[in-house]
Amino acid sequence: MPFATLRITVFGESHGPAVGVTVEGFPAGIPVDEQGLQAFMARRKTQSAFATPRVEEDKPIFLSGVKNGFTTGAPLNATIYNANRRSGDYEAIRDVPRPSHADYVAGVKYKGFADLIGGGHFSGRLTAPLCVVGYLAKTYLEKNGIFVGAYLSEVGGIPSVSYLDGIPSKDDIEASQDKPLPVLRDENKKKIEDMLKSVKAEGDSIGGVIECVALGLPVGLGECGFRSMEGRIASAVFAMPATKGLEFGSGFLLSKMKGSAGNDPWTLNGGAVVPTTNHNGGINGGITNGAPLSVRVAVKPTPSIAKEQDSVNLKEMTPTKLTVGGRHDTCIALRAVPVVESCVAIAIADGLLEIQGQNC
Amino acid sequence: MPFATLRITVFGESHGPAVGVTVEGFPAGIPVDEQGLQAFMARRKTQSAFATPRVEEDKPIFLSGVKNGFTTGAPLNATIYNANRRSGDYEAIRDVPRPSHADYVAGVKYKGFADLIGGGHFSGRLTAPLCVVGYLAKTYLEKNGIFVGAYLSEVGGIPSVSYLDGIPSKDDIEASQDKPLPVLRDENKKKIEDMLKSVKAEGDSIGGVIECVALGLPVGLGECGFRSMEGRIASAVFAMPATKGLEFGSGFLLSKMKGSAGNDPWTLNGGAVVPTTNHNGGINGGITNGAPLSVRVAVKPTPSIAKEQDSVNLKEMTPTKLTVGGRHDTCIALRAVPVVESCVAIAIADGLLEIQGQNC
Amino acid sequence: MPFATLRITVFGESHGPAVGVTVEGFPAGIPVDEQGLQAFMARRKTQSAFATPRVEEDKPIFLSGVKNGFTTGAPLNATIYNANRRSGDYEAIRDVPRPSHADYVAGVKYKGFADLIGGGHFSGRLTAPLCVVGYLAKTYLEKNGIFVGAYLSEVGGIPSVSYLDGIPSKDDIEASQDKPLPVLRDENKKKIEDMLKSVKAEGDSIGGVIECVALGLPVGLGECGFRSMEGRIASAVFAMPATKGLEFGSGFLLSKMKGSAGNDPWTLNGGAVVPTTNHNGGINGGITNGAPLSVRVAVKPTPSIAKEQDSVNLKEMTPTKLTVGGRHDTCIALRAVPVVESCVAIAIADGLLEIQGQNC
Amino acid sequence: MPFATLRITVFGESHGPAVGVTVEGFPAGIPVDEQGLQAFMARRKTQSAFATPRVEEDKPIFLSGVKNGFTTGAPLNATIYNANRRSGDYEAIRDVPRPSHADYVAGVKYKGFADLIGGGHFSGRLTAPLCVVGYLAKTYLEKNGIFVGAYLSEVGGIPSVSYLDGIPSKDDIEASQDKPLPVLRDENKKKIEDMLKSVKAEGDSIGGVIECVALGLPVGLGECGFRSMEGRIASAVFAMPATKGLEFGSGFLLSKMKGSAGNDPWTLNGGAVVPTTNHNGGINGGITNGAPLSVRVAVKPTPSIAKEQDSVNLKEMTPTKLTVGGRHDTCIALRAVPVVESCVAIAIADGLLEIQGQNC
Repeated sequence: MPFATLRITVFGESHGPAVGVTVEGFPAGIPVDEQGLQAFMARRKTQSAFATPRVEEDKPIFLSGVKNGFTTGAPLNATIYNANRRSGDYEAIRDVPRPSHADYVAGVKYKGFADLIGGGHFSGRLTAPLCVVGYLAKTYLEKNGIFVGAYLSEVGGIPSVSYLDGIPSKDDIEASQDKPLPVLRDENKKKIEDMLKSVKAEGDSIGGVIECVALGLPVGLGECGFRSMEGRIASAVFAMPATKGLEFGSGFLLSKMKGSAGNDPWTLNGGAVVPTTNHNGGINGGITNGAPLSVRVAVKPTPSIAKEQDSVNLKEMTPTKLTVGGRHDTCIALRAVPVVESCVAIAIADGLLEIQGQNC
Repeated sequence: MPFATLRITVFGESHGPAVGVTVEGFPAGIPVDEQGLQAFMARRKTQSAFATPRVEEDKPIFLSGVKNGFTTGAPLNATIYNANRRSGDYEAIRDVPRPSHADYVAGVKYKGFADLIGGGHFSGRLTAPLCVVGYLAKTYLEKNGIFVGAYLSEVGGIPSVSYLDGIPSKDDIEASQDKPLPVLRDENKKKIEDMLKSVKAEGDSIGGVIECVALGLPVGLGECGFRSMEGRIASAVFAMPATKGLEFGSGFLLSKMKGSAGNDPWTLNGGAVVPTTNHNGGINGGITNGAPLSVRVAVKPTPSIAKEQDSVNLKEMTPTKLTVGGRHDTCIALRAVPVVESCVAIAIADGLLEIQGQNC
Repeated sequence: MPFATLRITVFGESHGPAVGVTVEGFPAGIPVDEQGLQAFMARRKTQSAFATPRVEEDKPIFLSGVKNGFTTGAPLNATIYNANRRSGDYEAIRDVPRPSHADYVAGVKYKGFADLIGGGHFSGRLTAPLCVVGYLAKTYLEKNGIFVGAYLSEVGGIPSVSYLDGIPSKDDIEASQDKPLPVLRDENKKKIEDMLKSVKAEGDSIGGVIECVALGLPVGLGECGFRSMEGRIASAVFAMPATKGLEFGSGFLLSKMKGSAGNDPWTLNGGAVVPTTNHNGGINGGITNGAPLSVRVAVKPTPSIAKEQDSVNLKEMTPTKLTVGGRHDTCIALRAVPVVESCVAIAIADGLLEIQGQNC
Repeated sequence: MPFATLRITVFGESHGPAVGVTVEGFPAGIPVDEQGLQAFMARRKTQSAFATPRVEEDKPIFLSGVKNGFTTGAPLNATIYNANRRSGDYEAIRDVPRPSHADYVAGVKYKGFADLIGGGHFSGRLTAPLCVVGYLAKTYLEKNGIFVGAYLSEVGGIPSVSYLDGIPSKDDIEASQDKPLPVLRDENKKKIEDMLKSVKAEGDSIGGVIECVALGLPVGLGECGFRSMEGRIASAVFAMPATKGLEFGSGFLLSKMKGSAGNDPWTLNGGAVVPTTNHNGGINGGITNGAPLSVRVAVKPTPSIAKEQDSVNLKEMTPTKLTVGGRHDTCIALRAVPVVESCVAIAIADGLLEIQGQNC
């Protein structure tokens, strides 16, 4: 576990009986608003034309750890039964690994015993339980005055509004989250939608960038070293299968800057010590500095596409062509927004629990 | 610990008696070539004109876990005594936190008890013990046919050769490592040097990008989820204080691509299943796929600069100006190359130990 | 986690929807014989007259990690739905904590949010999922030539045959396990049964001692220090709520002996180095020495008894009397035999995985 | 790590350059009274006639994490240099493993690379760094109103006063700790001393039982399951090489009792809910219940004795005789008292940190 306090196990396979999660170390007395949770989970499904038409109710059942609408402090289990299981689409894949997917590595690592149907344990479906924990973490943080919110900031290289243009407010972020295309404002919205339409028409897919900010953080979450706040967030965000990179604050841009421009000078604001700029994304030396935490996440294009691709038939050890059927997203970054938000919230909740203990 | 098998504690303060590291879970029988280690540590010191003139012998003393030139299997301690301790330069800093450094957060988090002289536990000096573990990890990996090597690929926005231009060979990387400017080839070398000179003359600092590749990896290291190979590497790399971002393979570039272009098709090569491209950086679903692992790391400019900066006097709670004296690097990315290499090697060694056990 | 490789979460409440377990780090390709598992689980239920008449089918459903009769290597979830939920019996208990049970501490620790019906998460029912993991661990160990078996060695102070009389064989132990009273041989059997009858008639309960041995162990499992084989076994065995003590080999008896009598001299046996006696219970310095591992576990009397006891009404903060209704065991030690066996098997499997890795 | 918050590495070999410890997760601002520490460490050395005459100053040097007499919150390192290193005595042992010692298992497990001189990493000398952490833990607990104290309760089967005769007070325990024979009161003192003299005269050794109690505990430390308070204490106590068993409260005695006698009824005492008896040793369901925590630890006889013993020459694979020279204790239980106290204090401090966080 990259975390200091939370012990989380995400389990399940795409077309097995269920996906779900167990959580240990989460405090008692945190309200679990099932409607709020359902609304949050719905953001991951997105109703947009660019999402997979596989319809799952995605209703988490709490088998333990929640009673009368509050967490009990005991290990929590949330199970989402897979109602809509299919396997026919994937039969062909077993011997022919999909490019950029985990089929091949899982086959080798688990010596042929892995359940690979629909990606098995490596499926994007496994991000649903992450969102359950994310929602709980967000609720715990909210009780402590902390807001975590994510939105889409770039699709296929077309930028929309970024926190680099100014940290967005809670209201701005929340307003974006009900849109089919969860961008902050409407710049380039039309351009992105047109691009998505054409990518979809081609049977292709496209990547994107998601940004996440946390507001209201105290100074002091995280550690220097292997348990830095960045490392915890990174470990959580890389648990989302399509993540290929992440940067805090100005990130790679900061690597091109001089210290005199990229350092964040300290100033006083209403009695509080705050940085006047925020190239460091609210973290110094692995520890939150009280300024907004900001992180950008690179999401790769959905590996499963309808276009013909090269692969290998592992049974016959011959080159072959593969066309992936089934139901797939044009751009997973659209649906990954609440997942990134969840991962960041989980890591921050871990940091807060570490300093204030389970009693607070 | 973000790792599955290795338990590592890096300890020490910049101007305390020593910095060092303890390691549990490292296998017995790994040779410890003290000359090789010394040569590796020397890369972190760099003799270049752009590094801090603070001269430390940086000689790790193994207080435990190494005997007759081999690891014993018992917990290993390497201690590097701080011979050259100064504190005068930093006296002024105590009440006036340096922009972009951890002075302020450490002061708050540790309630005034932190040792902040020279950055204390947050100093870049703490990367020396990381290199000791990195060297041991590299030796263990080498015994298993795996090579990990890093080099500088960009300074202040000026690009040099990158793995995106083609994965470099072991020889190429090793040849780069003795140079004062550890770039792969000489493209833009002059331009980078001129820029560094002018930055130094201004009393300023500059960021950079370090790349690291691992060659000879088996399929199957890492896991899907919170202990992905990316997450382990990220947690290790973010233990280096100046890291602000990282991306695997094509990373953020891949987020701009279509699946048909960014997917890595499978092919056969001498009987082995390999990807024809490597946008995923050798990792699928958190697990190594046998192709070269590649990662790019954004390193921010050295926070300590000779130029005047804004800050706050915490004692008097008034705005103030700060000029950081003392000995500082123009570009820490130059010296961070073996640190990144160490962090990546540690995470990969952890993955290898997890699948082959301590007996192999 | 006290373990080096296995990450296990036991979840559920006695009268919630389900109890179950998730396991990470368990190797792929281990057969899961559902009939064998069912037979093993049945030992925990015991048909004896001294067990609670609450009848639960106790059928674990694998929601993930098992496919076609083998573990897949992905996180494994086994869920046992609670078919036979009652809560009336326990209504009175909420305000009046049962002596020697966790009602009071759970109420305080979890600030009134804990689900305490039937003991909630603290119920003996939570040992059912432990047995699922135990069975998997036993299967993994069996594949590696290791047998773990437990039996009852003492009830209410009446001793039956102990390993102190000579390490029992696999056959001896297996023969004991189908008996209602799982003792090794018939010495004192009648006496024990008579005592149990009279305790039951009084509405009282009684404690016992369970012994567990592991045969066929390699030298080298475990570590010196906080992850000793004893520490791992202890952490697992104390996860069973009624455990109040444990001793390895001759244990407390060895504390009364001289070194010349209690040391285990080394000898050669068919080319192997083995101890001639086994007062150390097969462990030296936290590490298995190849001799049979032996451990004795003190199990307290069932806290829930039909006799009137003193307690406190927490609502009114007044002294009160309590008579616990519901369905309870006369002697939980009878049913705890496979639980102890499971706990020991889990800890040993963890040690074996640590040295031979997931690939073996 | 069996702990929830503390990450501790004990390192060193008996005749290597040093033994020591690193600790992560310990809060900032805990006073480190070097004189108090020295006095505590001295208890482990004991001046009694029955202890090894090897004289080590045992002065821990804090290489990090302590400044101006307080912990800083950064990883703490305490190093004790081995001034008095000898190896001649142990030369013979390398090929001839000592009965009941870890020589043989360490040789096999670490494939011949272990440093075994004087027991190497398995030596009782490694309990000195445990005491350093123990002292820090005790100080932290003291600040929170918690006292942890141990004493000798039995030697070679001769009982002295036990907590089973009534929980001793802080004063009683402290008064015992300066005595050469750290028993609570003088019952059987002469008998024990005479026995020790005769054992010493024979060149033999003898075991004993140490008891430890913790007073002033809040309700709620520990968890149900693998991180029970008993499991954490057990993992810590089994890190002491000579431990062979432990029991909480009435332990094995409780396994012989009926529920009506062995249950601890609740009552009111000055407004607080407390048990009227304490057979459970202050722990229910893995969680402290506010009553005194009590634990008994079985310590085996010192394995190294002057009497001739059977062993095997591993080089020639022939039976041989062994007489262990060097400096050894007649009864390690005498010196192990502060070690047990340390182990229990560490585990409790871990539980307290878990619920109140690093900020308290």
